Amino acid sequence: MKEPESSGEFERIARLKRRFHRVVPEVEIGAGDDCAVLRPNDAAIAISVDAQVEGVHFRRSWASLAVLGRRAVMAAASDLAAMGSRPIAIFSALILPKTFDDASLESLAEGFERAGDELGAPIAGGNLASGSELSITTTVIGGVGRAIRRDGAKPGDSIWVTGTIGARGLGLEVLLRDAARDALSLPFVGAWLEPRARIDAGLAIAPFATSAIDVSDGLAQDVGHLAESSGVRAVIEIERIPLASGAGELGARLGVDARRVALSSGDDYEIVFTLAADQTPPIAATHIGRIEVGSGIGAIDAGGRAVESGGYRHFG
Amino acid sequence: MKEPESSGEFERIARLKRRFHRVVPEVEIGAGDDCAVLRPNDAAIAISVDAQVEGVHFRRSWASLAVLGRRAVMAAASDLAAMGSRPIAIFSALILPKTFDDASLESLAEGFERAGDELGAPIAGGNLASGSELSITTTVIGGVGRAIRRDGAKPGDSIWVTGTIGARGLGLEVLLRDAARDALSLPFVGAWLEPRARIDAGLAIAPFATSAIDVSDGLAQDVGHLAESSGVRAVIEIERIPLASGAGELGARLGVDARRVALSSGDDYEIVFTLAADQTPPIAATHIGRIEVGSGIGAIDAGGRAVESGGYRHFG
Repeated sequence: MKEPESSGEFERIARLKRRFHRVVPEVEIGAGDDCAVLRPNDAAIAISVDAQVEGVHFRRSWASLAVLGRRAVMAAASDLAAMGSRPIAIFSALILPKTFDDASLESLAEGFERAGDELGAPIAGGNLASGSELSITTTVIGGVGRAIRRDGAKPGDSIWVTGTIGARGLGLEVLLRDAARDALSLPFVGAWLEPRARIDAGLAIAPFATSAIDVSDGLAQDVGHLAESSGVRAVIEIERIPLASGAGELGARLGVDARRVALSSGDDYEIVFTLAADQTPPIAATHIGRIEVGSGIGAIDAGGRAVESGGYRHFG
Repeated sequence: MKEPESSGEFERIARLKRRFHRVVPEVEIGAGDDCAVLRPNDAAIAISVDAQVEGVHFRRSWASLAVLGRRAVMAAASDLAAMGSRPIAIFSALILPKTFDDASLESLAEGFERAGDELGAPIAGGNLASGSELSITTTVIGGVGRAIRRDGAKPGDSIWVTGTIGARGLGLEVLLRDAARDALSLPFVGAWLEPRARIDAGLAIAPFATSAIDVSDGLAQDVGHLAESSGVRAVIEIERIPLASGAGELGARLGVDARRVALSSGDDYEIVFTLAADQTPPIAATHIGRIEVGSGIGAIDAGGRAVESGGYRHFG
């Protein structure tokens, strides 16, 4: 942790250092020096940075800061998962409004700590600064054997996705509208608030996948990135997209099409990946489409007919 | 670079990727995938994160965004220098106000690029998010052989500092007061605006130094951190602190004591380090004090008498 100005800040940093202290073989020096020093077991490391800004990415009224803090770290760690990387250390840079009190910081820190413990990687440093709005910028560092690149998909490959898609988008819709939280909607709200980076899935597919990306911007958009990077066309069979139980019913209540939400909403933090045609995944995953020669993405129905593609971005 | 929402943002990201693209042996995958992937030549890596917020750490009226962007990266890299680490890659997470136009982003990026080129490390990724105020959060990654810790100073060690101390504090004072910029004051303003992380110095002292820290919060405070971490007392001989030419004169004009500014102002980005008593540094540096048994820091005059210590923080 870097030190800011006031003595109150020094005390805050000292408390955070104590909370985050862990004895971990690959973390030689944790928070408290100019830098953290890592000695990774792997020859290569993966790094990603993600920021969450209050009022843009979340509202404080939606959940405790512990839940929102954990979520910020998990969102960042999702990029490690999609690379086939194993988390080693987490760095959290906070911009805090002047009114942000010690109890709020403790709650946020509790969330970071929980995420770190779930990921098996300590919070090894960060930064505190003041500003007008709360933001959480998370840097994650992981070890990597074979990195799963975004640009390796080949015509003939099959497209797969972990978990279910669109539940977090529906949950976010409930939060944004302040809609009823009941037996139907609560699991969706919970899915948005408590994502889990698919680290184990990423490690399991790393030796086999020809490409992968995490579903953070929306399935269509993220598959579009993958297709664009790989110089191929991706065709998704809409009806194969795995929806969560109750998605159709909750969508109907909210007046949205659950399958369209699954294509266009973000925050799923699942992994979409491609495999050579003769491969099957070593984990539970759903086959949702195929890679073709060409560019952009297309959507087809079960009969193979192109379906109207409004509601998600085109890439060619 | 991670992708935000609008298509304008995707185009911005694409432009940044092109600008920052470098072929560098230790950077296996740069901006454009879920993560960057580094393959460091050293077995250990150092990591630090630093944030600069508009209105808190800088004002846009002070300089071009290129200068302010370069400065943000250099401030972060200074922590690598103090660890004896060699920069490998830089990650820049930006929170941009909605009104932040493309030309401003290009200027900021030019500054990042210039800093990266000076440091010999590419901008290998980052994040764009929107918010109400501009902030620049920089993560720096370096290779490290022997890390210079903050906690290794021993009684009997001598204390040294690179460069001059306090010039940036005086320059900041000129900026904050919007005081005259003339032949006397301009070099000080320039020193604040255009710091240079002392990477070469850090690498040169790494095999010998018993401890080191960069001077970012102010000499007294940073030496205080070093003493506290090492469990020792640091005694600084005030009159030995190396001031820049003209510091006394500019201080007199501003009505401040230049030596006191040197003790208490920050942003110097020089390195203060300790050596065993029989060692001399392999680089140009000034001997400013010694480590004793005890705690906290003390200030003495040339005759060895304790001097009044107002104006800087005590640590014991």
